[in-house]
Amino acid sequence: METTDFKLTSWIKIPVNSDFPIYNLPLGIIKHKDGKQSAATAIGDYAVDLSALHRLGYLKGIALPDAIFDKPYLNEFIALGKPVWHSLRQRIKVLLGSDNGELRDNKQAVKECLYSINDVELCMPVKVGDYTDFYSSKEHATNVGSMFRDPKNALLPNWLHLPVAYHGRSSSILVSGHNFHRPKGQVTLPGSDNPSFSPSKALDFELEMTFIIGKSTELGQSISTKEAGDYIFGMTLFNDWSARDIQRWEYVPLGPFLAKNFASTTSPWLVSMEALEPFRTKAPDQQPEVLPYLKRSKADSAIDITLEVWLQAEKSEAVKLCTSNYKYLYWTMEQQLAHHTSNGCNINVGDLMASGTISGPTPDSFGSMLELTWNGSKPISLPGGQERKFLQDGDTVIIKGYAQNEKGRIGFGEARAKVLSAI
Amino acid sequence: METTDFKLTSWIKIPVNSDFPIYNLPLGIIKHKDGKQSAATAIGDYAVDLSALHRLGYLKGIALPDAIFDKPYLNEFIALGKPVWHSLRQRIKVLLGSDNGELRDNKQAVKECLYSINDVELCMPVKVGDYTDFYSSKEHATNVGSMFRDPKNALLPNWLHLPVAYHGRSSSILVSGHNFHRPKGQVTLPGSDNPSFSPSKALDFELEMTFIIGKSTELGQSISTKEAGDYIFGMTLFNDWSARDIQRWEYVPLGPFLAKNFASTTSPWLVSMEALEPFRTKAPDQQPEVLPYLKRSKADSAIDITLEVWLQAEKSEAVKLCTSNYKYLYWTMEQQLAHHTSNGCNINVGDLMASGTISGPTPDSFGSMLELTWNGSKPISLPGGQERKFLQDGDTVIIKGYAQNEKGRIGFGEARAKVLSAI
Repeated sequence: METTDFKLTSWIKIPVNSDFPIYNLPLGIIKHKDGKQSAATAIGDYAVDLSALHRLGYLKGIALPDAIFDKPYLNEFIALGKPVWHSLRQRIKVLLGSDNGELRDNKQAVKECLYSINDVELCMPVKVGDYTDFYSSKEHATNVGSMFRDPKNALLPNWLHLPVAYHGRSSSILVSGHNFHRPKGQVTLPGSDNPSFSPSKALDFELEMTFIIGKSTELGQSISTKEAGDYIFGMTLFNDWSARDIQRWEYVPLGPFLAKNFASTTSPWLVSMEALEPFRTKAPDQQPEVLPYLKRSKADSAIDITLEVWLQAEKSEAVKLCTSNYKYLYWTMEQQLAHHTSNGCNINVGDLMASGTISGPTPDSFGSMLELTWNGSKPISLPGGQERKFLQDGDTVIIKGYAQNEKGRIGFGEARAKVLSAI
Repeated sequence: METTDFKLTSWIKIPVNSDFPIYNLPLGIIKHKDGKQSAATAIGDYAVDLSALHRLGYLKGIALPDAIFDKPYLNEFIALGKPVWHSLRQRIKVLLGSDNGELRDNKQAVKECLYSINDVELCMPVKVGDYTDFYSSKEHATNVGSMFRDPKNALLPNWLHLPVAYHGRSSSILVSGHNFHRPKGQVTLPGSDNPSFSPSKALDFELEMTFIIGKSTELGQSISTKEAGDYIFGMTLFNDWSARDIQRWEYVPLGPFLAKNFASTTSPWLVSMEALEPFRTKAPDQQPEVLPYLKRSKADSAIDITLEVWLQAEKSEAVKLCTSNYKYLYWTMEQQLAHHTSNGCNINVGDLMASGTISGPTPDSFGSMLELTWNGSKPISLPGGQERKFLQDGDTVIIKGYAQNEKGRIGFGEARAKVLSAI
């Protein structure tokens, strides 16, 4: 760990409180105006083209195949392994540091490597093979259980013993900025078993984060909580859009399907676990005691990441709906990964593991409209006199996230998308 | 439709009742002894190497890119579209026909194109992006509901209104012949909410079939039942291995996860919808009437495919456990696909859609041990005095399937795998 790195400065101008100081250096995929895609890192309001850096010889000494940064996804780079991730990060920090002139003083090279973030398109960072969605917030599961079952027995019997999860749809994961149409589906009136087919009237967001797998396993192999860190590359913000009315009718007995698979939104930059290390914090206590394969490897297996959800109605200002934190999760990512592989299920580089809705203890920290409006019974007031029980056409939802402590601050950018009317 | 093609004969010797007469011509991926993979078709006991056929100029006139059959998966070929699938099939039928000497009379070419099925390894035919598992057998859903809920209300309220489904895990789909280890996981004693971690004691097979997507859609696009046929390339046999004890504890409220994602087995040859067309048959009546988007496009939207499950205990002969039929499914594949895309969910070439367990009306047609032994209460007797409630280590399960009528017969080969002991 290099906490002193927070004091580093760059010859690239970085706005105060930027999500992307020189310490962060997340990885993503950018598309240039000519359509060419390349891997990049973000610094301040710039994207640094790693393909160009590599081609121009600025990454010598790192074990990188030719054209590794010219691929449409980061999977092949990530598969090179943790020592290579680390070397790249270290090298970029040096190269962009205030006192380094190697790149800075070569105007032609700067022109080829440095792009205003407004001049490039941010793309899906990885090709997701399999996408798993956990359900790891005790507050969220308790809220849902209280609303739809029994407040006194809100959690189902398995919930405190294992991180409940289900498989999601990879094909419909969108990168921030891509809008989608309101889904249609079978819905029923309360108390009725006669469905009709219509656009969802209960479209919701879910405030989530993901971790992206950095190392594959073979079928039959299990990962311990202690080993889990070696298999995780980085994290993103995530919105698991949900149609509550479709979900209510379809989900028994095999879980959510069309209620979720019409769209999910990820932020574009993969923030590395290395960059997040200084923000480790204590995870919530667990009672009853978990089985041995789920025992946490360390006390600070949570991460302190402040999360915000903003809603921007058409022609209105964005308003903040909630503030939550990744550290609230009852099940940590090392426990999630140990559980996921405990039966021998294999994982692949680029797999996306989402946290489930991250709700906190207070009503202003609930991570979905379902909880914020208590299933529509307490509408949210918006500026200009509008109200929301669930999302309306034209609503843009923006998830933001950042980690901050006395040492410094890094952010995730945003996961943003607008709800278009049903086709 | 070319039903007269059933009378075609080939200059390649084909055993009587082979799954692969010249009419079938399924596609797959073979691996040669030198490790090279290529696309192939099956005829009798031979694999015909399509890469070699193409290289040697035998496929001229078909719009095929160079090296299209040298890929490790069929996805890129399938993406070329239905007219190309048809042209290839027609050309191979001519080339392998009794009266055609083009290939037959070129001994060197025959040597490069024709391989005994014993001299090649059969590989995964497609790279599966997303895998969906339906739950479309009324008999199976009724059996499960009767066992675990209420025999008088065995079907949940949604079941007759929509084809229930969930997303499965793509990474652990194995091709026939690849064995796997018994999964471990959290299980509870009946009536207890205190889990322990152990190898599953209730490992089961599920007799299923798949259809493989042949044409992609954009997010937001829906496919009607009438259009569905354009989006389906072909079918395989499928075993959705299930750990019933893990499933019982984990599956509320989000569905099966570790109980299923440790392994699934597909047969290696994709039998085309074109080859299956003569075996179309009437699907079961549906009451209550389905919503308009689920109305079947034609009366014969089912397919008559006889399915068998065989169990071979270690050092024993294989015994047949059940005989079922794909035509029993309440929801047909065109309904499944229309439902899957009704919310705008996008599909991609190579996606795998499994049917769910295919059980018939009589106990000897039930497609899982769970049903055959009625949750272990009626053990199955095997030769040599052994009994089975669920699967034991060393048990090999073999699924076979064929379509046969007065016109002719085609088969699917097999989906076979052995249960190895837990790691």
